[in-house]
Amino acid sequence: MPKLMKHLTVLAALIASAAPVLAAQTLADNYRPAAQRIIDLALADSSAWNTLAELTDQFGPRLSGSANLEQAIDWVLAEMRKEGFDAVRGEPVMVPHWVRGEESLELVSPRHAKLPLLGLGMSVGTPPEGITADVIVVSDFTELEARSSELAGKIVLYDAPFTSYGETVAYRTQGASRAAMHGAVAVLVRSVASESMASPHTGTMTYADSAPRIPAAAITVEDAMMLHRMQERGTPIRVTLRMGAKTLPDAQSRNVVAEIRGSERPDEVVVLGGHIDSWDVGQGAMDDGGGCVAAWEALRLIRELGLKPRRTIRVVFWTNEENGTRGGTGYLEAHRDAVDKHVLALESDNGAFRPRGFGFTGSEEALAIITQIGSLLAPIGADSVSRGGGGADIGPLMEEGVPGMSPRVEGERYFWYHHSHADTMDKLDPGHMQQLAAAMAVMVYTVADMPDPLPR
Amino acid sequence: MPKLMKHLTVLAALIASAAPVLAAQTLADNYRPAAQRIIDLALADSSAWNTLAELTDQFGPRLSGSANLEQAIDWVLAEMRKEGFDAVRGEPVMVPHWVRGEESLELVSPRHAKLPLLGLGMSVGTPPEGITADVIVVSDFTELEARSSELAGKIVLYDAPFTSYGETVAYRTQGASRAAMHGAVAVLVRSVASESMASPHTGTMTYADSAPRIPAAAITVEDAMMLHRMQERGTPIRVTLRMGAKTLPDAQSRNVVAEIRGSERPDEVVVLGGHIDSWDVGQGAMDDGGGCVAAWEALRLIRELGLKPRRTIRVVFWTNEENGTRGGTGYLEAHRDAVDKHVLALESDNGAFRPRGFGFTGSEEALAIITQIGSLLAPIGADSVSRGGGGADIGPLMEEGVPGMSPRVEGERYFWYHHSHADTMDKLDPGHMQQLAAAMAVMVYTVADMPDPLPR
Repeated sequence: MPKLMKHLTVLAALIASAAPVLAAQTLADNYRPAAQRIIDLALADSSAWNTLAELTDQFGPRLSGSANLEQAIDWVLAEMRKEGFDAVRGEPVMVPHWVRGEESLELVSPRHAKLPLLGLGMSVGTPPEGITADVIVVSDFTELEARSSELAGKIVLYDAPFTSYGETVAYRTQGASRAAMHGAVAVLVRSVASESMASPHTGTMTYADSAPRIPAAAITVEDAMMLHRMQERGTPIRVTLRMGAKTLPDAQSRNVVAEIRGSERPDEVVVLGGHIDSWDVGQGAMDDGGGCVAAWEALRLIRELGLKPRRTIRVVFWTNEENGTRGGTGYLEAHRDAVDKHVLALESDNGAFRPRGFGFTGSEEALAIITQIGSLLAPIGADSVSRGGGGADIGPLMEEGVPGMSPRVEGERYFWYHHSHADTMDKLDPGHMQQLAAAMAVMVYTVADMPDPLPR
Repeated sequence: MPKLMKHLTVLAALIASAAPVLAAQTLADNYRPAAQRIIDLALADSSAWNTLAELTDQFGPRLSGSANLEQAIDWVLAEMRKEGFDAVRGEPVMVPHWVRGEESLELVSPRHAKLPLLGLGMSVGTPPEGITADVIVVSDFTELEARSSELAGKIVLYDAPFTSYGETVAYRTQGASRAAMHGAVAVLVRSVASESMASPHTGTMTYADSAPRIPAAAITVEDAMMLHRMQERGTPIRVTLRMGAKTLPDAQSRNVVAEIRGSERPDEVVVLGGHIDSWDVGQGAMDDGGGCVAAWEALRLIRELGLKPRRTIRVVFWTNEENGTRGGTGYLEAHRDAVDKHVLALESDNGAFRPRGFGFTGSEEALAIITQIGSLLAPIGADSVSRGGGGADIGPLMEEGVPGMSPRVEGERYFWYHHSHADTMDKLDPGHMQQLAAAMAVMVYTVADMPDPLPR
C-alpha cells in the first residue's frame, strides 16, 4: 500500500471509530439538563424508601402462591392507578405454590438443642414424626463422593464456606439429589451467607429425576461449623428433622405493569423493574422489593417532571423470580410478538443499595451509548458502566436478543441478609434508594427518548 | 526562695518523680525474657480456642441453675486436675435459678406474624393463654412519661436505638417497672445491640418494689423499628405475648478455682479469670467462656514454662455473673479474711478479641508499675495501659481496695453478638485468643513474682 493511501486509510478508520463516540457525546450533552432535573428531584425526598416500608410493613414477605403476595400486588396496582400512570395492569401468570409448614430441627446427640432452620424452597417435607438419623458432615461434593459408602440412611450436612454465591449455592440447589444418590435420607446445608448472626438463609432447590426426593433445609453457619467440629472430634451426631413443606397446585399470580406511553413511537418499549415476590421470611425488602420500588420511583420522577419520552417506558414487577421465574418467562410469552420492539430491559435485583453504575449486555455500539448516558450520573457517583449486566426476569428477553442491564450497587452486605429474616427495611438507606431511582430514571428516559433506537 | 535552693528543689522533685519510673523500667527489663518466652509459647498453638470450642460445643450455653453449667464446671475441674494445677476446686455458691420456659410473640394486628423474642432474665411469665394487648411504642422514658395516660392495659415497646450499652441497657433493666407504674401489662424492649441480623438479645432485668411485676421480653431491632413505623402511620398494633418464664428456688453452683502456688509468699494472691455462666442462648463463647479460657491458658503457659512466681496466681471462673453476680460476692465472702493479701484482680469479660492493652483501677504508683509491665506486650501490640479497668465479678474485691484491671480488646463487634444466639465460637479468632492469654499471663506472672507487692 502506498504511503499516502495508508495514511488516508488510518485517518478514515480513526474518523469512523470516533464517530459513534462523538455522536454519543452529543447525546450526553443533549440529555444533561433532563438528567440533572431527574437527579435533583430524586434527591429532594425519600419517597422510594417510604413506599417500600409501607408495602413491606403492611404485607410482609411475599412468597409465590401466598395471600401476602397477591394483596401486595393489589395494593401496588391501586397506588399506581391513583398516581395516574398509563396502562396499569396485572398480567396473569401461574406460579408454583410451595408452602413451608411447621418445621424444626433438634440436635438429639451429643446433647439436646433446638437448631434454627429454614427448609429450602420446593423441598419435600418429612413424615409427621420427622426423620431421626445420624449426621455426616462434608465440606464439598468431592468429600461427599469419597464417603459414598457411609451415607445410606444418613442425613448429610454440607458445611461449605461461602466463597462466591455462584459457587457455594450449588450445595443448596443440587445438594439433596447428589446426596440422595448415595442413599442419604435428608440434607442440611450451611446457609449461603457471607456473614452470620445465627440466622438461617433459605432459597430454592431442585430435584434431579434420577434420585429419590429427600427433604432439604438450611441451618445457620454457626451450627454447621459446630456440627463439623463435633464430627472432627469423633463425636457421633444425631438429629431429628421435621418439615411440613409441600407443593400445592400452581396458583394465580400477576406481573405488575405500569407505563408512561411513548409520544412518538409508543410500540417501542424500554422495560425496567424488579421482582415483587420474595421468600417467606423477613420483609423481602432488599430482595427485591427495593428493586421494584426503585423502578416505580424512576417512573414517578419522569412523570412528575413532565418528561414525554418518544418511546414507551414500562415498569414491570415480575412475579415468582425466587422459585420458578414464571414472571420472566410469562412476560416473554405475553409479549412475544413485541420482542423486537423491546429496545432495552433493565432489572434491579442486587439490592437497592448505593448505585455506582451499571452492567450492560449488548453490542459494542450500544455499550458506547449506554456508557455516555452513564456519564450523566457522575453527579451521584453512579457513572461507571461495564460489560455484564442482566437479571433472572429479563433473561428470557435477553435470550431473544434484547439488550439487558442492571445497576451495580455497593452490595457488600447483600449476602448477609439475602433470603433470611434479616432482609428488612432498616438495611436500606433512603438517600441511596433515591440515587438508585435517579440512575435508573436517567438511563431509561434517555434510551426511550433519544432519536435513534438503541442498536442491538 | 533563693535561686540555688529553688533549683535544688526542682532537681529533688525531678529525682523523686523519676525514681519509680526508673525502678519500673528496671522491672520491665528484668521480666522481658520471661515475657518473651510466654509470648512465644502462646503464639505457637491454638489451645485456648480449641479448649473453648470443646467446652461450648459439649455443654452449650450455661445459665445459672442449669445442668449445662454444672456439667461444664465438672468438666473444667476434671481437666484442670489432669493438667496438674494446684488446689483445683469448686467453691460452692448458691445462685438464682431462672428458667425461660416456652415463649412466643405473635403480631395479631395489622397482620399475623411470629416475631422472634427472648424473654428477659428474671422476668415473670405470662398466664398460660398469654397477654393479648395493644402496643404503644415509645423511644425513651421521656416519651413514656408523656404518654402516661394511654398506657393502662397496654404493652409498652421501648424502641430506643443503641447509643452506648450503659445508656441503652436502662430500658432492658428498668423498663418493666417504669411502664408498670403507668398501668402497662407487659413490656417489649428493642434488643440492646449495635448491629442486627434479626436475632433478639436477652439480658437481665430487675423489678422495683413499688410497681407490679409484669413480663418483659426483647424483640429484634428490625421488628421494633417496624412496629414503630406502623404506629407512626397510625396503624393500631396488637400482639399476643406468651412466656413460661419463672424463678425457681436458688440452686447450687460453684466458682471454679485453680492455682499455681507461690514459691515464697503463697498467701499473697494475684487473681484472674472470667465468668463461667452465660445466658441460655448461643454458646456463651464470647461472653464469657473466652475470658475464662484465656485465664486458664495464661496459667497453663506459666506452668508449662516452669515459671515459679513468688506469690500465688489463682484463676477463678466466677459463676452467675449474668443474673445475680453471686459468684463475685460469694468469692469475697469465702476469702474475706484474705482480702488484704489480694495483690491484684484481673477480669476478662469484654470478649476474647485481639488485645490492645489493659485498663487499670488503682493508685498512681501502681499504675506506673502496671504501665511498665504493659510495655512488655509491645511485641503483640497489647502494651497500651490506661485508667479505668475492672469487672462485675471482681467489683466486690475492688470495693475492698484490691487494685482491679481488665484487658482492652478490639471489641467493635461485641454488641453484635452479646446475649444472643450469635455468641458462638466462630466469632473468636484462635490467634487473638492466644495473644489475650499471653497478655494476661505476662501481667499476672510479673505482678505475682516481682520483689515488692503491687502498692495499693
